[in-house]
Amino acid sequence: MKGIRQLAEHLDISIGTVSRALNGKADVNEETRKRVLAAAEEFGYVANQSGRSLRQGTTNVIGLMIESSKETVENSDNFFLGVTGGLQSVLSRHKLDLVMLPCPSDEDPYEYLKRMVARRVVDAMIISATQRIDKRIDLLVKAKIPFVALGRSSSGGGNFTWIDLDFEGVATCAVDRLVAKGHRRIAIAAPSGEINLGYIFVDAYRKALEKHGIAYDPKLVIRVKSSEQGGYQAGDELLRIEDKPTAIILIYELMAIGLYRRLVEAGIVPGRDLAVIGFREEPRAKFLQPTLTCFRMSLPDLGAALAETLLAGMPAYSETYRDGVRNRIWPLELVPAESDAFFLGSKT
Amino acid sequence: MKGIRQLAEHLDISIGTVSRALNGKADVNEETRKRVLAAAEEFGYVANQSGRSLRQGTTNVIGLMIESSKETVENSDNFFLGVTGGLQSVLSRHKLDLVMLPCPSDEDPYEYLKRMVARRVVDAMIISATQRIDKRIDLLVKAKIPFVALGRSSSGGGNFTWIDLDFEGVATCAVDRLVAKGHRRIAIAAPSGEINLGYIFVDAYRKALEKHGIAYDPKLVIRVKSSEQGGYQAGDELLRIEDKPTAIILIYELMAIGLYRRLVEAGIVPGRDLAVIGFREEPRAKFLQPTLTCFRMSLPDLGAALAETLLAGMPAYSETYRDGVRNRIWPLELVPAESDAFFLGSKT
Repeated sequence: MKGIRQLAEHLDISIGTVSRALNGKADVNEETRKRVLAAAEEFGYVANQSGRSLRQGTTNVIGLMIESSKETVENSDNFFLGVTGGLQSVLSRHKLDLVMLPCPSDEDPYEYLKRMVARRVVDAMIISATQRIDKRIDLLVKAKIPFVALGRSSSGGGNFTWIDLDFEGVATCAVDRLVAKGHRRIAIAAPSGEINLGYIFVDAYRKALEKHGIAYDPKLVIRVKSSEQGGYQAGDELLRIEDKPTAIILIYELMAIGLYRRLVEAGIVPGRDLAVIGFREEPRAKFLQPTLTCFRMSLPDLGAALAETLLAGMPAYSETYRDGVRNRIWPLELVPAESDAFFLGSKT
Repeated sequence: MKGIRQLAEHLDISIGTVSRALNGKADVNEETRKRVLAAAEEFGYVANQSGRSLRQGTTNVIGLMIESSKETVENSDNFFLGVTGGLQSVLSRHKLDLVMLPCPSDEDPYEYLKRMVARRVVDAMIISATQRIDKRIDLLVKAKIPFVALGRSSSGGGNFTWIDLDFEGVATCAVDRLVAKGHRRIAIAAPSGEINLGYIFVDAYRKALEKHGIAYDPKLVIRVKSSEQGGYQAGDELLRIEDKPTAIILIYELMAIGLYRRLVEAGIVPGRDLAVIGFREEPRAKFLQPTLTCFRMSLPDLGAALAETLLAGMPAYSETYRDGVRNRIWPLELVPAESDAFFLGSKT
């Protein structure tokens, strides 16, 4: 790549003029500016913003940390790509770029983040899949890297900025709906790991049951991976419960596909023999028959809110997003369908 | 965040010793090294590698440019997440990290790449979705940024490093297979844009037909978006062709889902009334009934090959990957299934 010096020599203009032309200063005449830009294009000259950013302490790049595991490959839901568009719509207003940081499945997310922070690839971070105890939060707080978490956590004394989906709302709505249709034995497929949303979801389910005077039965909490395969396994375990549940609530969008498959194998029809309530509405699960009762949310809107919340916490942008820094529970809207439509009493 | 100076003051050790301890030099005693590392952890000290990389001219980060459009959100196939794992498996050997650079759908990929190059986020690039004429290739060549393209292009005088899927092989195999089963009117759903693979695919289809003495009929080339919706539209257009085709070959993995939907609406059964050959085997399309004849490939292997090819072109790693820089056609393996199993003569 040519440097600014080579450009100046080639054009026989001073380095200062070339620099002013490249930086769009008004004191360069139009003719010269055009010549400089044309030559810069021709020689593939690009300003070294790494040097610039070292002085300014900024890269103008925001990172979105995601997990890349074998499971996410088989379970390619549209969540992060959907959020990305919304993030970019806000970041682009400020000439900020988004990069996705895929943490390999065989690496500790904390060690990965530590390295990415050290590499100074980004000015600020969005982290996701927060664990109940999540050392990444302490790391970012200490390193004074602005960040927003998609998900709550007990770490950082709870004193950090987050947006989280309304897992309480989903669990409560699902239980209320099923109880109203006559169900008392309601199972729940919850994540097997230490991800924080699992705790929230099961707690809310338990409270909703108690509200209806239904005793919490730990045997009905089926711990599986948040994946299509996890859904299949949940179906398998459900079939082996002695006092059979009549309904199941799922916590991950693609679980429904695996669950349906296992039920069909066993000759059980969702929406007739077993009520099923899925989690987020997702293109892949739209083709399920009978149609799946689930919950809808706007991924681009969530992405935009994450970006605004993040910028509100960055000194250079906080003025523009005065009301932005606040922890938010993101609502999901019920999409009623066939999979839980029957009343238990009406079964033959 | 604490700097190295604050760390040294806190520990009451010289800055030089702290630096040597952090950098793992042998002349620091074990006790001191442990104290320094513990304090660094406690205070969230992370070495500023941006300063380091400016001196070395490297970031140790490799970028994978992808497209993020509304379509990719609805069409969340598992391609790039699958490739990511393979890329990381090779890059991690050299302590290199991968970031994904999602180009927004409303931005020109060339302008986007130019900015990312200027930001110096990455040392090297993997670009995808190459167009027939792709200015990004000229930009990277001129800027002397090492890169590998996933896809061929006429740009750069063809003189750049690429790996591309075997679209010729897929088209030829599909045509041969269908002709052997008695088909002569074979339609093809091809991409509507200037993406290079579209040209390769249609050319190979045309040549395969000619080999069998079948005249090429441009009416049988259905131009649609590479998406599920595009598949639906291809079905729609196919139904309106006067001299109806008896078979269709698809160029994008999720098209089959939309196509099946449109066919079912019209009372046409794939694999009985119309032969369908899909493109890449994908989890979402695995549930189609009747099962879809398609082609299989290993995404992690492709990712690993891309990484090795890229590193072979980077001076710091070329020694390790001596045989790495070469343009490669990536094979796909036929997965025969029900959607094209019938013989045309045997239809009632």
